[in-house]
Amino acid sequence: MPDQDLILSWIHTVVEATANVAFALSGLLAGIRKGLDLVGLCVVMGLAAFGGGTLRDVLLDRRPFFWVDHPTWLWVLIALGVAAIFFLRARDFEFTERAIQWPDALGLGLFAASGTQLALALQLPAIVSVLMGVVSATFGGILRDVVCNEIPTALRDRRPYAVCAFAGGWVYVLAVHFACPAGTAFLLAAAVAAGTRAWALLSRYELPAVRSAASGD
Amino acid sequence: MPDQDLILSWIHTVVEATANVAFALSGLLAGIRKGLDLVGLCVVMGLAAFGGGTLRDVLLDRRPFFWVDHPTWLWVLIALGVAAIFFLRARDFEFTERAIQWPDALGLGLFAASGTQLALALQLPAIVSVLMGVVSATFGGILRDVVCNEIPTALRDRRPYAVCAFAGGWVYVLAVHFACPAGTAFLLAAAVAAGTRAWALLSRYELPAVRSAASGD
Amino acid sequence: MPDQDLILSWIHTVVEATANVAFALSGLLAGIRKGLDLVGLCVVMGLAAFGGGTLRDVLLDRRPFFWVDHPTWLWVLIALGVAAIFFLRARDFEFTERAIQWPDALGLGLFAASGTQLALALQLPAIVSVLMGVVSATFGGILRDVVCNEIPTALRDRRPYAVCAFAGGWVYVLAVHFACPAGTAFLLAAAVAAGTRAWALLSRYELPAVRSAASGD
Repeated sequence: MPDQDLILSWIHTVVEATANVAFALSGLLAGIRKGLDLVGLCVVMGLAAFGGGTLRDVLLDRRPFFWVDHPTWLWVLIALGVAAIFFLRARDFEFTERAIQWPDALGLGLFAASGTQLALALQLPAIVSVLMGVVSATFGGILRDVVCNEIPTALRDRRPYAVCAFAGGWVYVLAVHFACPAGTAFLLAAAVAAGTRAWALLSRYELPAVRSAASGD
Repeated sequence: MPDQDLILSWIHTVVEATANVAFALSGLLAGIRKGLDLVGLCVVMGLAAFGGGTLRDVLLDRRPFFWVDHPTWLWVLIALGVAAIFFLRARDFEFTERAIQWPDALGLGLFAASGTQLALALQLPAIVSVLMGVVSATFGGILRDVVCNEIPTALRDRRPYAVCAFAGGWVYVLAVHFACPAGTAFLLAAAVAAGTRAWALLSRYELPAVRSAASGD
Repeated sequence: MPDQDLILSWIHTVVEATANVAFALSGLLAGIRKGLDLVGLCVVMGLAAFGGGTLRDVLLDRRPFFWVDHPTWLWVLIALGVAAIFFLRARDFEFTERAIQWPDALGLGLFAASGTQLALALQLPAIVSVLMGVVSATFGGILRDVVCNEIPTALRDRRPYAVCAFAGGWVYVLAVHFACPAGTAFLLAAAVAAGTRAWALLSRYELPAVRSAASGD
């Protein structure tokens, strides 16, 4: 069914572009909050958008990186940074922050599924492959926050983010184990990761933390 | 002497497991102090336990990583994080912190010796090999502290830690230079690194720092 | 013209040594300001001097690293750290900080040109190659500041630094495109990067940032 493949590939491209822009915008907002200059905005956007996938590829020893294969994205980030300097005002921020949560959830699903798929294809153990999905989906945000001199949001805000990627990764592993075609497994995994994230955003569910930490710190 | 090799390999496994748990616990305590959630605790434990060795392997271009070869350890970290959420209380912390100093010193010795050994086997210069031992032993803790938004303890607390790994690494280089068998050199190096660390803990010896910094900052 | 090549190579060695020392000194000063101990000073100097080039080489999958090929430099850093502990006083700092701006600008030019050259030789796209020059020139300082628990100066102080490396990189790409010999392209690129940096230091020109950030934060 080449038609279905073509449609899937086209959807993948659109979702990927949406997710990259959402990740980059999360970096842009973090950079603006910290008062970074044009260079800072571009670096933090780049880390947020490509940091997770690049770290995964360094760990898996894969080349070329996404941004080497698609260098146009580097121009998109620079253009976003320049546009932000000229057009953004403080009152736009809150709206933007809430608006990017949804494409960001799509990105989470996509990165979790593709990271797991890439690692499984290299014959890595299931838990390691799932972890590579989690790294792809979350370490962009972690690097963004480290460079902005913050404890990473993904590690402390108790909103499920990495665990959604973790769940999606296991869906991929199970689906492939039960002989699903790769495309179906990918869709299922991305849907579960993005869906649980969307559910967490809507329900305001919180992960547990050590109880005494809040009072003891 | 296969018997001796077997005993050595068994001791190595036990020491390694003890050291990994000690490194992971140091991450757990740092994460709890910072009020991280379950995901944060697992990430910081993973960085503390495997960050140094993984960075060394990325620099040396070695694969597979320790945690890819032994994925069970990833489950151990997740289980530790979950157990901490359910069972740890604030009053346990201080005891734990002092208790892990000793297995942590063992880990320092083990990582310093094995990092130096691996790098020498790749024909790297002596100073670079010793440095790889230091990186294995200390960068887990440095990454842990960077993600927790602290100046790394290893770089500022004046308690000898990296210098013990440095000393142990040179012991390995010298022992091999004077034709010691690799196993003996390994034991000597690990003993010197762990022993000097233990001595530093007991004697409260402090490294020098620039004198005016304390008053000028 | 072997004579010219010899002179160029000799100049390159001198400029490289000057730049490495300038980068290391920037790490030394940052470490002293933060009250780091001897180990901390050496680590931060190493990150400042070799972090950018090493990250570039990890991304490009190049080995050996500069400091593996020239391990003497590791001894130089250790010696600098020890000397700083014994000889530096607080009153020396301000002079040193201003004095190293100029060799640091040389280093910026050199790293921007060599990073771009290395990446182009690997057939990478122009924008990626220029970015590798920027990474070589700036990520040492970024890693130095991250470890010192600061928002990196290069990302927030509005003084052109990374953009000078960016400009120098494009000069290299254009020069090679118009069939300049590699040596000439290298010199032109390094001169433009270092020259624009020197001009920025003298003119106190500032990059734009999002206007509302200053008042909103």
